[in-house]
Amino acid sequence: MSSNVLRVIPLGGLGEVGRNLMVYEYDGEILVVDAGLMFPENDMLGVDYIIPDLTYLSQHRDRVRGIVITHGHEDHIGAIHHLLNEVSAPIYATPLTRGLLEVKLGRNGLGSKADLRTVQAGETVEIGPFQVEFYHVCHSIPDGVGLGIQTPAGLIVHSGDYKFDHTPVDGKPSDYARLAEYSQRGVLALLADSTNSERPGWTPSEKVVDAGLEDVFNKAAGRIIIASFASLISRMQQVANAASRHNRKLAFVGASMIDNMKMASKLGYLDFPETLVVPIDQALNLPDEKVVIMCTGSQGEPTSILGRLSTGSNRLFDIQQGDTVVLSSHPIPGNEENVYRVVNRLFQRGADVIYEAIAPVHVSGHASQEEMKLLIHLTRPRYFIPMHGELRQLHRHAGLGEEVGIPRENIAVIENGQVIEFKDGKMTVTNERVPAQLVFVDGSGVGDVDPEVMREREALSRDGIVLVNLTMTKEFNAVVYEPDIITRGFILSREGDELLTAARKQIIQAAGRANGNVRRVVEDTVRDFIYNETRRRPMVFVNINRVV
Amino acid sequence: MSSNVLRVIPLGGLGEVGRNLMVYEYDGEILVVDAGLMFPENDMLGVDYIIPDLTYLSQHRDRVRGIVITHGHEDHIGAIHHLLNEVSAPIYATPLTRGLLEVKLGRNGLGSKADLRTVQAGETVEIGPFQVEFYHVCHSIPDGVGLGIQTPAGLIVHSGDYKFDHTPVDGKPSDYARLAEYSQRGVLALLADSTNSERPGWTPSEKVVDAGLEDVFNKAAGRIIIASFASLISRMQQVANAASRHNRKLAFVGASMIDNMKMASKLGYLDFPETLVVPIDQALNLPDEKVVIMCTGSQGEPTSILGRLSTGSNRLFDIQQGDTVVLSSHPIPGNEENVYRVVNRLFQRGADVIYEAIAPVHVSGHASQEEMKLLIHLTRPRYFIPMHGELRQLHRHAGLGEEVGIPRENIAVIENGQVIEFKDGKMTVTNERVPAQLVFVDGSGVGDVDPEVMREREALSRDGIVLVNLTMTKEFNAVVYEPDIITRGFILSREGDELLTAARKQIIQAAGRANGNVRRVVEDTVRDFIYNETRRRPMVFVNINRVV
Repeated sequence: MSSNVLRVIPLGGLGEVGRNLMVYEYDGEILVVDAGLMFPENDMLGVDYIIPDLTYLSQHRDRVRGIVITHGHEDHIGAIHHLLNEVSAPIYATPLTRGLLEVKLGRNGLGSKADLRTVQAGETVEIGPFQVEFYHVCHSIPDGVGLGIQTPAGLIVHSGDYKFDHTPVDGKPSDYARLAEYSQRGVLALLADSTNSERPGWTPSEKVVDAGLEDVFNKAAGRIIIASFASLISRMQQVANAASRHNRKLAFVGASMIDNMKMASKLGYLDFPETLVVPIDQALNLPDEKVVIMCTGSQGEPTSILGRLSTGSNRLFDIQQGDTVVLSSHPIPGNEENVYRVVNRLFQRGADVIYEAIAPVHVSGHASQEEMKLLIHLTRPRYFIPMHGELRQLHRHAGLGEEVGIPRENIAVIENGQVIEFKDGKMTVTNERVPAQLVFVDGSGVGDVDPEVMREREALSRDGIVLVNLTMTKEFNAVVYEPDIITRGFILSREGDELLTAARKQIIQAAGRANGNVRRVVEDTVRDFIYNETRRRPMVFVNINRVV
Repeated sequence: MSSNVLRVIPLGGLGEVGRNLMVYEYDGEILVVDAGLMFPENDMLGVDYIIPDLTYLSQHRDRVRGIVITHGHEDHIGAIHHLLNEVSAPIYATPLTRGLLEVKLGRNGLGSKADLRTVQAGETVEIGPFQVEFYHVCHSIPDGVGLGIQTPAGLIVHSGDYKFDHTPVDGKPSDYARLAEYSQRGVLALLADSTNSERPGWTPSEKVVDAGLEDVFNKAAGRIIIASFASLISRMQQVANAASRHNRKLAFVGASMIDNMKMASKLGYLDFPETLVVPIDQALNLPDEKVVIMCTGSQGEPTSILGRLSTGSNRLFDIQQGDTVVLSSHPIPGNEENVYRVVNRLFQRGADVIYEAIAPVHVSGHASQEEMKLLIHLTRPRYFIPMHGELRQLHRHAGLGEEVGIPRENIAVIENGQVIEFKDGKMTVTNERVPAQLVFVDGSGVGDVDPEVMREREALSRDGIVLVNLTMTKEFNAVVYEPDIITRGFILSREGDELLTAARKQIIQAAGRANGNVRRVVEDTVRDFIYNETRRRPMVFVNINRVV
């Protein structure tokens, strides 16, 4: 490793949305920023979630001096327990973020193991050769920070997730002064959130949601059920405010939502009268027009509260005529079908459903194009590295950087695993690549499901399976009993009877004339026969027994 | 069946997007409007496409007097060969729609069987008791029509897909005069397209795309590759115009796109100089800045030309540095992931990629809210039935109807299979339901894959399969050889070795102590063992042989 070099190594979140993890390394000492998870795409079959590739950190675990978490959303904290299994280092976070980390680590049995240290926005901590300054940013959760990272190679600004909201729910705008101060000090490089780089203009203030909710509360005659993310703390405050104004009691449903709500209340990030919140069983006994229920499921997850309400399989209560359901969320790309299926089913059950497409009941927590330009102007960096986004979004963000005057050659559009070096004030995109695979978590296994297993699952899902059990004579020259055929996911049994009867005949003939490799011959015969008859290609497995 | 009653029976497109098919029935005589297909959602595993449930039409095949097709898009014509397998009736369509039907039927071996009849917009045909008037509408394909259906029970207006484009590509605005004339005659009911009912304002004119393309052509230094739907004939004309203006030759790639282009040219719906279009092999030999290539794949389909270009697996040519790729399309809900994956990969290969989110290279072909209100005002119907849309879109459309003065009780939000009756000028939503299932087409099979088979595919895809082959003693009391275990889609073989070795031990013990039902005991043992070790639930199949 060369000295006096600052290395920037993204292990997640560059070229994809989620599982954000950035490595800063100077003279062999490592600072990790964030440790998020990513939700699987539709063709990542059976995968629970995806985490960053931790190989590099695992190999250099003795060099990791600290972990900084910018805010408490899953795409920034969701892999923390996986990270702590690989490295041992203190974790620095603001109070609410720390509280949500505690909830998360507690649930994963690591509550006592972690060395958590609270930092207030505005403070600076020394982590190895890095002076990390926390500056306040607005986002859809309170207590989010961006980072000014002073290194011997120069000052880096790491934006985290941010928006420039002039009327945020907690009343605290982003710290413009600190950003301007950085520009005076001279910013070597800006790494900034690209999520909304395709969105023109300025992201509306969270305040817009107050008006949207007010409208819903004014019109609703019955119960109001509001679905959102369990970690969207600001939205909880807004719903509580509206409930308070309209003399409704508020009940939370769902373990993760309740845990987060309690933690945020305890730390003072949620502020409402004690009598406002009631347990769900109590809420269900109040008159309909006196109740607001807040729950999870805004992404259409079938096993969430809202998902179960939409199919009539919720345990505690059902949707009833007159209910107003609000999805206070934006569908994560790939979830649209699930979300809209839930909306349609709620309509079918008699609810009136309000969602982002038809009313301002949600705004994004991420900066849009004009805010992105403002951040660049405020910090005036020499170099610019778009982060947090798919490749197309990084490219678009790079385009915005050019528009506001950063020379093309000073902008690096890179993907996970690509190493950037800063030395003597110059940026180099090196040819070095560190491991940055998608690491799938499925059940309790981490990383033991790979693209090959995924391809097998895909093949299984496409046309199902056909299992053939065959008993042959001792001499292996004829079939003794009728072959036994089991199918799954291939064809309806009532439609398939005739087909399978014909298949059995083919199998008996094939096995009889097969010389030697009976299994192979029968498998090929079954595959060809099925394809000719149905144009489908199920996986075929043949097992040969010999008669006793 | 009661007399003097007009029955309206949606068999597709109400409560979903696509596979549009509407049945109008008077005194037992049936008119069918459209016969479309729908593309599978992400969890409809292995399904090629979905068609309307034709049971009702099959049961009453002798009563079907005619089929009217409003325009040549797949969601309106894609199931025509399935319909013709059930009923025999003349098909009425405008010239281009007829041409595209011929292409489609030819490809399905029904070219000669169909009784196709050409009708010009403005003409009226008598189909049983129905006087069907074709009126011109703008859409993203030329020669689209809406229908004025004069029945003994009253006048029905069936909008088809439409927008009110004042500057359409073919210069022909929607037929306002005819719509106004209907309102003077008195419209009993309006059935109208709900696709964009969540979209405020007015859908931009197709003309916007001309400016969007012009900008692309001005900036592109190398080849331009434009992906769109094979049936988006208007877009072909716009691309041809731009190519012509910029002295580029135009090549089409993809069988369906070429077939449709040829048919539309032959019928005069595409108008460009003969020398403009060149075969692809010729285009590839021209200087880069002299070429435009138009192909399919704008929905991110992995096997399409654009899909293959994005993975470097196209046969004729590859993406090269300097290419500009345009996706002139809107992702169909559920396709977002695939579309954006293709975009990201094209960036990776060095192309500049232009798509709807960042430039006006596509506009919708469907009316937005203000146009929907205009259609209602133009026709002034007594009753209103939103069609073509998911339930949430039908509800939103109903809301718009109310806003412009149709009483709530005169609006029917219904779903496929629900029967509406009109008698003596009164609408009744009956309790009658005709079969309206999702009919899955998979390979050559129609309807032999149902939700149960789909659930099996889903289970297979989630955690894969484990097959165990066991050989036992003649007495069935002990395992003879090491059990044979095959897995697919469950775990990586290198990671799974240890697990499977442990599983074999468990199997041998379980089989030894099983009294009687060895298979059942071993299956349960394997399932429990795997779940405890991995938290996964693959499908487990055990087969028991006895030693010879």
